[in-house]
Amino acid sequence: MLSVAVAGAVFASPPPGSILAALRHVTKPDSAGCVVIITNYTGDRLNFGLAIERARQEGLKVDSITIGEDCALTSSDRSAGRRGLAGTVLLNKICGALAEEGKSLEEIVQFGKRVTENMGTMGVSLTPCSVPGSGPTFSLGDDEMELGLGLHGEAGVKRSKIKPAGEVVKMILDHMTNISTATHIKLTKGDKVACMVNNLGGLSLLEMNIVAGEVISQLEKRGVAVERGYCGSFMTSLEMAGLSITILHLDDTIRRCLDAKAAVPAWSPPVLSRNNSYRETPSCIRVIQEESSHSTGNFTRTTKESADMLYDMIKLSMGRLIASENELNDLDKESGDGDCGSTLARGAKEILKEIGQNNQPGLPVDTPADLALSLARIVENSMGGSSGALYSLFFTSAAGPLQQDVTGSGWKRALKEGTDTVMRYGGARPGDRTMIDALFAAVTSIDENVSSCPVSVMETAVNAAVLAANSTASMKAQAGRASYVSAERLKNPDPGAVAVTLWLQAILEILKTA
Amino acid sequence: MLSVAVAGAVFASPPPGSILAALRHVTKPDSAGCVVIITNYTGDRLNFGLAIERARQEGLKVDSITIGEDCALTSSDRSAGRRGLAGTVLLNKICGALAEEGKSLEEIVQFGKRVTENMGTMGVSLTPCSVPGSGPTFSLGDDEMELGLGLHGEAGVKRSKIKPAGEVVKMILDHMTNISTATHIKLTKGDKVACMVNNLGGLSLLEMNIVAGEVISQLEKRGVAVERGYCGSFMTSLEMAGLSITILHLDDTIRRCLDAKAAVPAWSPPVLSRNNSYRETPSCIRVIQEESSHSTGNFTRTTKESADMLYDMIKLSMGRLIASENELNDLDKESGDGDCGSTLARGAKEILKEIGQNNQPGLPVDTPADLALSLARIVENSMGGSSGALYSLFFTSAAGPLQQDVTGSGWKRALKEGTDTVMRYGGARPGDRTMIDALFAAVTSIDENVSSCPVSVMETAVNAAVLAANSTASMKAQAGRASYVSAERLKNPDPGAVAVTLWLQAILEILKTA
Repeated sequence: MLSVAVAGAVFASPPPGSILAALRHVTKPDSAGCVVIITNYTGDRLNFGLAIERARQEGLKVDSITIGEDCALTSSDRSAGRRGLAGTVLLNKICGALAEEGKSLEEIVQFGKRVTENMGTMGVSLTPCSVPGSGPTFSLGDDEMELGLGLHGEAGVKRSKIKPAGEVVKMILDHMTNISTATHIKLTKGDKVACMVNNLGGLSLLEMNIVAGEVISQLEKRGVAVERGYCGSFMTSLEMAGLSITILHLDDTIRRCLDAKAAVPAWSPPVLSRNNSYRETPSCIRVIQEESSHSTGNFTRTTKESADMLYDMIKLSMGRLIASENELNDLDKESGDGDCGSTLARGAKEILKEIGQNNQPGLPVDTPADLALSLARIVENSMGGSSGALYSLFFTSAAGPLQQDVTGSGWKRALKEGTDTVMRYGGARPGDRTMIDALFAAVTSIDENVSSCPVSVMETAVNAAVLAANSTASMKAQAGRASYVSAERLKNPDPGAVAVTLWLQAILEILKTA
Repeated sequence: MLSVAVAGAVFASPPPGSILAALRHVTKPDSAGCVVIITNYTGDRLNFGLAIERARQEGLKVDSITIGEDCALTSSDRSAGRRGLAGTVLLNKICGALAEEGKSLEEIVQFGKRVTENMGTMGVSLTPCSVPGSGPTFSLGDDEMELGLGLHGEAGVKRSKIKPAGEVVKMILDHMTNISTATHIKLTKGDKVACMVNNLGGLSLLEMNIVAGEVISQLEKRGVAVERGYCGSFMTSLEMAGLSITILHLDDTIRRCLDAKAAVPAWSPPVLSRNNSYRETPSCIRVIQEESSHSTGNFTRTTKESADMLYDMIKLSMGRLIASENELNDLDKESGDGDCGSTLARGAKEILKEIGQNNQPGLPVDTPADLALSLARIVENSMGGSSGALYSLFFTSAAGPLQQDVTGSGWKRALKEGTDTVMRYGGARPGDRTMIDALFAAVTSIDENVSSCPVSVMETAVNAAVLAANSTASMKAQAGRASYVSAERLKNPDPGAVAVTLWLQAILEILKTA
């Protein structure tokens, strides 16, 4: 990259003495010499010029490249000096790589000058910036943007109302490539370029990436191949909320130099993989979204009687949850945002809608594993939030044991694994004042029960769950949203635990009718 | 780094369907499997948990690491779940490098979990952030800062008045290492660590580097070796003007994994060279400033008579510039900021002060090259601005020919090279309405003059310079500050050109007395 960088005060050229000291530091009299890269501002030209002249008088081998790749100015007048902007960083990288390859001072200067002629930059900003201790460098309305800025906080060449990112990028690219201006960059179909979207300091990564996506996509629509795309804070103007776009024509040497290894934090690899010699935007920015559930179709089926009973259990459970919507919401208002009942009712209604009539159920009640996966999908999509995810985890995990075993032991394991999974990912344990208190009590009760009568086992389990749910009234919340509320304010049982007892109770009631 | 990243809406976990699709995309049934890195937020745990459970049911080999390295919470309560913060990026890098090395799923998960236990992070911010389309996520006074934030725009654990960077860094490091909190990170003298200063989105590079310098320096003062320092926008909260500090204990494996090549723009090499196994702050952040002038002491001397004449020329020239201060300022008010006369007078007074009495001159009038370098130094330091730099360039360059040749031809070449250099770095040409008009006219006149009489040559040159200076009155400015002013407003000659005629005239007058 660079052997040395010489910093002045903010936005000011460093004094010649500092530059000369740096030149002496890196250029020993018998070395290959030093290329000085100067941005085209009067102060920089003069101060660096002074230092270079002095260094030469001391016998040091020094040459320079002045970079001014600004495309903003429209005048064809020579006085409209093109400023050096973010393209300077690309030039630094290329010259640094050439030096690393052992090229001579003359070769580097010659090639570097050619590089500056093959690039263009233009900036836009939504705000000015402020030199520490001073006010803003210019003023700009909330609904205005400034186009064609320099790097030192100076105002741009054009002001306009703010526009969406795509339109702003189009304005800039149109201006940069407008052949009626003396400072434009030639860009024709088939050209291969690198582009750099440079954060002037205050833009968020989200904004930067939106703009970078626009730049690449619009250049590609013009038939220009964006072989390297850079996006980041390369050359900034303090906290200015703006950016610049640089376009550089590529050849093999430039490409090789840009790709050369440079382990400095000021340089950032391209947003495109270095193996992509050419790309199209859509293939790299792909949104993956597929349906969440997935049945193999090979799971064990249950009997017609069991299927009917499952249908009835679901109907009754969901009905109970819907009927208790307000009661659960009231419990939730104490500790959460008061929507526990509504969230559960939303999922319950969706399940009822999908399960349809019992002569032709809309859900696979005859295949318990598929049924569990279906319920997982429905609650996840309809309930949302943590409750939806927790119940979806419960059903997804419960589906495992039911894939091959639909007997009592399969259902026992399903309930247990579902509960374990909710605990693992949700992070709650018994005693934390959550749905786990009721679920875990039921699972433990079933586990420890030696009775062979399903109704008796379930009845004991429901009683244990109700007891546990009631006991949450005196617990301090340890997980979930209620954990942010002080214990004194919590006087009633946890709505999530109560909801568990409601559907367990409904299952028991259907079981008793068998 | 990573095989795939799954993005949700801003600050929201992605839905399980997207995560599952990504898992299917990267984890073929016969592959080595996939490590999922989950930040410790309920939504992420649940949604990623769901996807992982489903993937496993489909026979994919998937395991996960949940990272929560937040040091902000002081409670020793288990409920105070530690959030996953910027340390996640370090974990991504380490696990990615282990995978690239061919380590097994089990080894990576085991090592990754150990890494999360050996790191800590804490953040601070001066502003909240705003989800696009919504208001700020919390409110904060202009003079307040928020400590211990999460990544999703939520408020922190502590609010305080803003303080200088050094004090803020001390507060954070003290909090992070406070052994009375359950979430602290152990840090003792002799420890070797990596530290990451992560921009939460809206801080400028200047601010980031100031803080990074403080963090490294304060850790080193505690006897902790900062072997790798990272500074950048690694994991952001939109435009939040804040940062987080992450400390990670190093061992050989972690160091190797952090240094492994990763050509992605989201990762940035350390601010310290990767070859520095250990460093001290001052040696890396060095300000180079040396005195600007430099004499070899080997330059040719002139005669006593010439030296006396040089003394007189300088005295008279400088006196004329001082006497014309107001006149030159008035000319400058038309086109510039009206200080041309004052700037030149400031330099002239300093030269008079240094040159002292003629029986013991304070400047090396007997060695023209040294004299020119001295004048360069004085005008550069006393005049400032472009004028100071231009005259300094003039004298520096003029010193070259005078190093060995102090005859008339040496002086001719000195004047010519000085003028050329000012044109080259200053960018002005004859006709641009600058000091160059007068200087160039004089140089050309001398060049073309075949007379062997110095007084005659100089007289013709001065006349040409005066003519050229007068003609600037009708020129359109093409360089310098006056180029921003319309031609109609410029009616008088350029003050810089007039000043050149004043000191040329003074030189001529002394020459005539010889």
